[in-house]
Amino acid sequence: MSTQFAPLKNDTFLRALMRQPTDYTPLWLMRQAGRYLPEYRATRAQAGSFMGLATNPDYATEVTLQPLERYKLDAAILFSDILTVPDAMGLGLSFAEGEGPRFAHPLRDEKAVMALRAPDLSSLQYVFDAVTQIRKTLDGRVPLIGFSGSPWTLACYMVEGRGSDDFRTVKSMLYDRPDLMHHILKTNAAAVAAYLNAQIEAGAQAVMIFDTWGGALADGVYQEFSLAYMREVIAQLKREHDGVRIPCIVFTKGGGLWLEEIADSGADAVGLDWTVNLAQARAKVGHKVALQGNLDPNVLFAKPDQIHAQVERVLQSYGRPEAGQGHVFNLGHGISQFTPPESVTALVDAVHSISRRMRA
Amino acid sequence: MSTQFAPLKNDTFLRALMRQPTDYTPLWLMRQAGRYLPEYRATRAQAGSFMGLATNPDYATEVTLQPLERYKLDAAILFSDILTVPDAMGLGLSFAEGEGPRFAHPLRDEKAVMALRAPDLSSLQYVFDAVTQIRKTLDGRVPLIGFSGSPWTLACYMVEGRGSDDFRTVKSMLYDRPDLMHHILKTNAAAVAAYLNAQIEAGAQAVMIFDTWGGALADGVYQEFSLAYMREVIAQLKREHDGVRIPCIVFTKGGGLWLEEIADSGADAVGLDWTVNLAQARAKVGHKVALQGNLDPNVLFAKPDQIHAQVERVLQSYGRPEAGQGHVFNLGHGISQFTPPESVTALVDAVHSISRRMRA
Repeated sequence: MSTQFAPLKNDTFLRALMRQPTDYTPLWLMRQAGRYLPEYRATRAQAGSFMGLATNPDYATEVTLQPLERYKLDAAILFSDILTVPDAMGLGLSFAEGEGPRFAHPLRDEKAVMALRAPDLSSLQYVFDAVTQIRKTLDGRVPLIGFSGSPWTLACYMVEGRGSDDFRTVKSMLYDRPDLMHHILKTNAAAVAAYLNAQIEAGAQAVMIFDTWGGALADGVYQEFSLAYMREVIAQLKREHDGVRIPCIVFTKGGGLWLEEIADSGADAVGLDWTVNLAQARAKVGHKVALQGNLDPNVLFAKPDQIHAQVERVLQSYGRPEAGQGHVFNLGHGISQFTPPESVTALVDAVHSISRRMRA
Repeated sequence: MSTQFAPLKNDTFLRALMRQPTDYTPLWLMRQAGRYLPEYRATRAQAGSFMGLATNPDYATEVTLQPLERYKLDAAILFSDILTVPDAMGLGLSFAEGEGPRFAHPLRDEKAVMALRAPDLSSLQYVFDAVTQIRKTLDGRVPLIGFSGSPWTLACYMVEGRGSDDFRTVKSMLYDRPDLMHHILKTNAAAVAAYLNAQIEAGAQAVMIFDTWGGALADGVYQEFSLAYMREVIAQLKREHDGVRIPCIVFTKGGGLWLEEIADSGADAVGLDWTVNLAQARAKVGHKVALQGNLDPNVLFAKPDQIHAQVERVLQSYGRPEAGQGHVFNLGHGISQFTPPESVTALVDAVHSISRRMRA
């Protein structure tokens, strides 16, 4: 199967995740294929809708590669959405313009929860087809990252039915009927593991679990309702495909206080948001995992010299990796749709040039 | 002056803040006078608007005391809003129904920033009048807390002009024109210190600084743009009034990673949100400060036995205070307007009964 894809020309990102030496700090950006790029907005207009893009492998390939045409990024990430999985479970996903995602059938009672099943993966074939087509089109330029939402983060949307400020509905269920919440999370964990494994089989060279809402949970509750299920997912992942190691990144936004426990999840790398001190984080995880992060995306609204200074701050905070350590540069959250595209040029140049100098 | 107020009958809250022994864990709730109470909604309807309540000392007194009529809370907190200060600076505060606060004249350019001045305190006399009237009406039942937003949190609203999801506008200024941001924060710090001191002179027996948006800042940036200015405020506070110590609480929501630095701010107590492990936090701060927190407000949507169990978890996590330590029970954020009032009864009973048992 490996023969279907070209050999990798730039493996810096994968090496950093696997805590092997690299000449510079590789970088990619969460949501790098997105609305801040005019070419993305043009393709999206053609496709008619967000899901029109995501469900069509040609479009998904086109937009995935757009940021790589502009910037010397060290990885590509599948263009998709974390809500494809609950959609395939029958919850009825739609995107109302300007309002974010909605589920027509949120999980609000015991009957709905107990009827939940992991999806038939064939209904997600469009995702796996996109992975394969993107990997082929990349032609070995950089590695391709596959991804999924975490079981808890998916559950937030599945119960709330949409985004939420306070997670009142999903947390009401969590505190009042923990048995129902565990049932959802167990189902989600099985679905996420199968989904990521299918992405790996289709060509993903690394996978990332986005626990966007784990940081909304209380200490103790996070460990029981989010981390435990990510651990369950990671334990079921194919960690090797065609004889090649497939590293796994886990990212709980707002999870800095739980770093040591997240580093014990079995993942190869831990994503960090901008509230975390990288020097302290590196000391805490030692040689157990690589770290990914952690620039505040709002830095990209400043002028190039300020972007340079803030990038230097992040790189100096992590420092020069020792043997058996690794750092992947990223933002601490998805890039804002309002980001000036030229800011990303300044960012990429700064990360590559400063980190090369630091390692020289 | 002290003769104008009745002697305090329940000083448990103040004793805990000052790390003196108490028979049980005192509690109050952020936003305890608020929309979850039908009697509050009735008074607000009479007053016509939120600011109609806040600017009228009779109404402010009435709603401040409402939760104390229902629940055995150990402190009252002035009914007001953190945005009274920027309003008095001439930014033009209004509350659009269902949309939250708005400023007619947000700080968007150098000219507006450089024209900013600390307010004439006489324009905030309605707040100090409310403090005195509440204190008198309390008649010594429980202590009265005064409060202010932190310099940074006020700046967020002053620059954004309203609430924000991503703080793009205020952070753009912070990263691009740190000189302007420091000018705002310095002005705010002077204003906040004077405002809190005037509340103390009017009768506040403890003060709290709400740094609601400090947790949105990057590591390093938080210390420079939020914590430094809270330290400046605290350094200027009257810590004693009429021979009585006035303790100060500082609360950065999402600031758990910076706990040791916050504990060094000069405050008597540090507020914690629910993401923080209280046992670890207690070990980190030692005997330096008391801790306040940290139940997830969403627990109040569960049934009484679950509320009891979650309260027990928080109290057990802190444990029995040693001599020279103190714990004040609170939520990790303001109580939700959707909270069933009877949940608060269960909460108060649980905190008092479990903590009395633990200390017996």
